[in-house]
Amino acid sequence: MRIGIVGATGAVGQETIQVLKDRGFPVTELHLFASERSAGKTTETAFGTITIEPFSVDAARGMDIVFLAVSGDFAKEYAPQIAAEGGAVVIDNSSAFRYDDAVPLVVPEINGRRALGQKLIANPNCTTAILLMALAPLHEAFGVKRAIVSTYQAASGAGAEGMTELEQGARQYLAGEPVTASKFAHPLAFNLIPHIDSFQDNGYTREEMKVLWETRKIMEAPEVLLSCTAVRVPTMRAHAEAVTIETRHPVTPAAAREVLAKAQGVTLADDPANKLYPMPLTASSKYDVEVGRIRESLVFGETGLDFFVCGDQLLKGAALNTVQIAELLV
Amino acid sequence: MRIGIVGATGAVGQETIQVLKDRGFPVTELHLFASERSAGKTTETAFGTITIEPFSVDAARGMDIVFLAVSGDFAKEYAPQIAAEGGAVVIDNSSAFRYDDAVPLVVPEINGRRALGQKLIANPNCTTAILLMALAPLHEAFGVKRAIVSTYQAASGAGAEGMTELEQGARQYLAGEPVTASKFAHPLAFNLIPHIDSFQDNGYTREEMKVLWETRKIMEAPEVLLSCTAVRVPTMRAHAEAVTIETRHPVTPAAAREVLAKAQGVTLADDPANKLYPMPLTASSKYDVEVGRIRESLVFGETGLDFFVCGDQLLKGAALNTVQIAELLV
Repeated sequence: MRIGIVGATGAVGQETIQVLKDRGFPVTELHLFASERSAGKTTETAFGTITIEPFSVDAARGMDIVFLAVSGDFAKEYAPQIAAEGGAVVIDNSSAFRYDDAVPLVVPEINGRRALGQKLIANPNCTTAILLMALAPLHEAFGVKRAIVSTYQAASGAGAEGMTELEQGARQYLAGEPVTASKFAHPLAFNLIPHIDSFQDNGYTREEMKVLWETRKIMEAPEVLLSCTAVRVPTMRAHAEAVTIETRHPVTPAAAREVLAKAQGVTLADDPANKLYPMPLTASSKYDVEVGRIRESLVFGETGLDFFVCGDQLLKGAALNTVQIAELLV
Repeated sequence: MRIGIVGATGAVGQETIQVLKDRGFPVTELHLFASERSAGKTTETAFGTITIEPFSVDAARGMDIVFLAVSGDFAKEYAPQIAAEGGAVVIDNSSAFRYDDAVPLVVPEINGRRALGQKLIANPNCTTAILLMALAPLHEAFGVKRAIVSTYQAASGAGAEGMTELEQGARQYLAGEPVTASKFAHPLAFNLIPHIDSFQDNGYTREEMKVLWETRKIMEAPEVLLSCTAVRVPTMRAHAEAVTIETRHPVTPAAAREVLAKAQGVTLADDPANKLYPMPLTASSKYDVEVGRIRESLVFGETGLDFFVCGDQLLKGAALNTVQIAELLV
């Protein structure tokens, strides 16, 4: 298939190329599109040396599938043009179409059928995708009534520049120099920033609201109550989340483990006696999302669980999920 | 007053000396006790150059107040001997006596009266003390029914060696070397470890259970339900906590802010439009605990709040609180 990646020089774009290769996606042509600044440059990829092309709607429409790893504004303007009658299928990483009832929002393991026959498909927010790998199977088995989520989000959520800024900041800190910040609202090295995306009128950030909105849409469960606190932490590329749920039906940690052990794309990392639990150190660069620290909730009792998840933000949180969506369409 | 500090060379011991000086505590003699290894060495302190003494029960009994900044095992053995008839008042940082009904567990702003006339007083776990600076005033005003707490705990919780290991680990990481770990269960630099203290049969760590046990004891509220996930994060010395509460009485963010603005030892850091919220960067080395991100809970509605707290683990989480207890006794 003729594959186009728009935003190919960014962190997600780069991961998408690698995932296509690693999973043996049937790529016949690979076109990498980026800004005018990068156009004409060559880049080494798993598919060989490729010259970056300037983006044009016509070129993108000539593909079978186009991955958009760009801003919401760009997607909003160009995705419909690329996907229009006779154009390519568009899989969009941005939030531009996620809340559009006419556009499916897809995590293949959960609601992959929604992608079939569609020309424009939205990829969820990274935090949501990682959360739902555990939450959706538990919802199916026990019915999730309420969820409280506290996130530990890696620098990669702000792209390659975010990771560079964290690394540079750590070097500055260790050298006793002031830590500078431009990508993040404050210095991130050796700090925590409870501020991701813009603040809404209700005091929640848009990042926090996305987790609620997207969870309801993907699980097709508008009745689920969910509150999120999203915190940027000084890790590189895996997001972690502490989750407490209240369920409709009684649940035990053992029953939850049984459900999660069967869930596709999930690795149980839940053996505290052997110091095994989800961590960025072990979840980074892995396709599966790690789930562990599963225990009865001390606030919801027999209809509640506490657990911890960790997944690679650039993979299940972005590139991997989009390639999995593409695989549904082959 | 004649003051003794046992464990004077550790991170908490060092902070205690500084806090005594900074707050103008009426110190007439300062005796620093440490292990045989350190005894005889001199140390520069805010009170001048002091020679470290080897610990002995008799020497400690000769003080007016003794701060124990040592292990629970040491405290269990020696605290009762130091405090026995004719001895000194003991303020113990360890968990040895926190759950003993006969020993008060004190945060001066909350239950300071419990310390009066006592010879042995326990200082709470750092995470609990920082949490309660916000939770206790809210409990008094609105009645806390349930609390869900996710922590972001700094390396200082494992003492000076914890901070050194994090710094060394960050240097190793940035140099592309393997990150070594001995104080922590896994490398902490650029990682998260959802494991603090030992695991209990119910799947919670002892650190997580301490927050429940100590909250109930200090707030004198055995009916409060609380579930905690305690996570070590790569920050140096301030703990942060994401908190969701369900209250008995209706609460609004504005009403909560009004209560917290009046609470002693609390700084409201709650102006998202100006990027003001609790962070280790701003809470470190401060006496006050920062509270912010106050908003209506999306799972508990009008009887619920979400908020974020951050406080210096070595100060309100340890040294400051013990000196404040001592101030009650002067």
